[in-house]
Amino acid sequence: MRVDAWLTLLQAAQQVSTRPWLEALKRCRSAEALIAEAPRLLSRDTYAEALAKLASPDEPTADRWREWLAQPHRALITFGSRDYPARLAELPDAPLALWVEGREPALLAAPQLAIVGSRSPTTDGSRTAEEFARYLSERGLTITSGLATGIDGASHRGALRMVGGTIAVLGSGLDVIFPRVHAPLAAEIAARGLLVSEYAPGVAPHKLFFPQRNRIIAGLSLGTLVVEATRRSGSLITARLAMDQGREVFAIPGSIHNPLARGCHHLIRQGAKLVEEAADILVELAPQLREEGIALTTVVSPPATPEDMPFMSDPSYQKLLKVLGFSPTPIADVSARANLTTAEVSSMLLQLELEGLVEALPGGRYSRLGKKN
Amino acid sequence: MRVDAWLTLLQAAQQVSTRPWLEALKRCRSAEALIAEAPRLLSRDTYAEALAKLASPDEPTADRWREWLAQPHRALITFGSRDYPARLAELPDAPLALWVEGREPALLAAPQLAIVGSRSPTTDGSRTAEEFARYLSERGLTITSGLATGIDGASHRGALRMVGGTIAVLGSGLDVIFPRVHAPLAAEIAARGLLVSEYAPGVAPHKLFFPQRNRIIAGLSLGTLVVEATRRSGSLITARLAMDQGREVFAIPGSIHNPLARGCHHLIRQGAKLVEEAADILVELAPQLREEGIALTTVVSPPATPEDMPFMSDPSYQKLLKVLGFSPTPIADVSARANLTTAEVSSMLLQLELEGLVEALPGGRYSRLGKKN
Repeated sequence: MRVDAWLTLLQAAQQVSTRPWLEALKRCRSAEALIAEAPRLLSRDTYAEALAKLASPDEPTADRWREWLAQPHRALITFGSRDYPARLAELPDAPLALWVEGREPALLAAPQLAIVGSRSPTTDGSRTAEEFARYLSERGLTITSGLATGIDGASHRGALRMVGGTIAVLGSGLDVIFPRVHAPLAAEIAARGLLVSEYAPGVAPHKLFFPQRNRIIAGLSLGTLVVEATRRSGSLITARLAMDQGREVFAIPGSIHNPLARGCHHLIRQGAKLVEEAADILVELAPQLREEGIALTTVVSPPATPEDMPFMSDPSYQKLLKVLGFSPTPIADVSARANLTTAEVSSMLLQLELEGLVEALPGGRYSRLGKKN
Repeated sequence: MRVDAWLTLLQAAQQVSTRPWLEALKRCRSAEALIAEAPRLLSRDTYAEALAKLASPDEPTADRWREWLAQPHRALITFGSRDYPARLAELPDAPLALWVEGREPALLAAPQLAIVGSRSPTTDGSRTAEEFARYLSERGLTITSGLATGIDGASHRGALRMVGGTIAVLGSGLDVIFPRVHAPLAAEIAARGLLVSEYAPGVAPHKLFFPQRNRIIAGLSLGTLVVEATRRSGSLITARLAMDQGREVFAIPGSIHNPLARGCHHLIRQGAKLVEEAADILVELAPQLREEGIALTTVVSPPATPEDMPFMSDPSYQKLLKVLGFSPTPIADVSARANLTTAEVSSMLLQLELEGLVEALPGGRYSRLGKKN
């Protein structure tokens, strides 16, 4: 039976690179044929263990996998099958199969944008990720990310209830949600979107799996947006993979004093598109969407209403905002620059914070925020 | 007498474009010859007023100009003369002459970087301009700007006391300082640097003069750095002129919520180099400085730790140090051994030189310095 042959093949093929298996599979055209041909195709030296596993697969493991697959809204999508996403299949090291769970398996074939970034972003960065994800998903792009804390989570949340929906690609089996704090978010994504993994049920997360997982996030997507990332962030790996795959890379700039902007600036220097607004991404992707015959959803927005902030006509508030700036600043510096007492500055900052114009940061520091509604 | 002929020519040539005058001047090779030939070279329809002025110049005006020039540290530097800055002379609409005032007329020929930006920057933006100007001037680049409030003023102040010094280019006569609030700064620049204008003494500022003035700022400089600017800022004109003149343009990114970053982001999308640190600019300008035989000042900094040198984790820098060795090596040999272009090696060597890891020797040779890491 087809699924049984695949469960055998996947037991044997647990390697970092899927390349030799994919090549063998393309030659043999089915998992059954590959299993039969394997002793002739794969070198006995390198693949001794894999060949042994193909000859006698572990039945309890296959049973557990079958049991997992028997539950509703779960599937194994194998390379070469109709449901395997075409964009991902282009990768020379595409996954042999994807384990998926969720009510929206059709999302796999939808036009996707990856949004990734720091696990510890600024409040502004999280908000930007969530707003960009909401805007783009509202217009029909599916937002794909990695379920990590920070930018990943914010992106999933922004897209979750919108028409484009969201896909989370995991670096572990779908029954081993990591980070644990995102178990409720994963459950919501399963209920409204799709969870995806190359790793079989029961596989625990491993640091080697995350760069592998990142190639899937980039590979499923038309482009990858990096929101906030240090120079050492794993998001830069995802962006690099996207570039290598010939996909668009987008990055959001930030203050030169914000270490979380450094990764984005590095990408922009390497050719990533600088984006200031979510609409910039649609403009960049438009030719490709058009070429592939993908129509996005038209959203009619209510006209913007002027905000009612009478205190903003007070010049001292305007001055305060001007001296504050967009990078974290201690309150003492703000009061010195504005030539106001700390008490005055304190109460003015609170007012501005309530209006969403400034952000209070740990250590008594403040920074300006963009205007929110 | 030469100066008299020029004072006559400048009275006649008060036009927005200097192009036809420059062409005539290049043909005639002197102001005297041009005055003599003008009736044959310039159409009587278009240049009636100018031809009349050439025939009978206004003597009281010429007297006032002579009087201004008679004071110490003042000069009129005419196109074609030895002191006229070579880089500016490349412009098809170069000024016919520059009125200058200050103790450092030699700055006109020095390697310059223009720093420009908003007249109402954030505190952070002002500080960045001042810090970049100080760092670069300390290393021997002259900082050229427009004496405006905001970024211009901060840039002049940062450079004023450093070895590279500063030049202010005005959009009015040098005796009509604008904005008035910068009169003390102008006096300081005259005492330690140089004030420059295309406009004769007595000419009041006019909004049409500022874009004209901007072409001189860009034209004197190897490159132009924009620090903070809205999308409508005049700084974008300066940057555009620099691009059109084939000069480097640098821009500092900022938060997407900071309207003063929008102009910079726009420039980066148009091909300006994104810079996070002042040293980035030296690295970009290195090949050109080297080509022109300009050596910057070496600043002795406390020994850098590997953490301060993120580029050292780049394998190509490691390779470069390895192939360089401790004996003087021509740059061509280094580039051949490292399998990199001369331009790449040049900029990498400058970075290493700034960090005190290599030494530049006469004759374009380099060697490693014995520094333990």
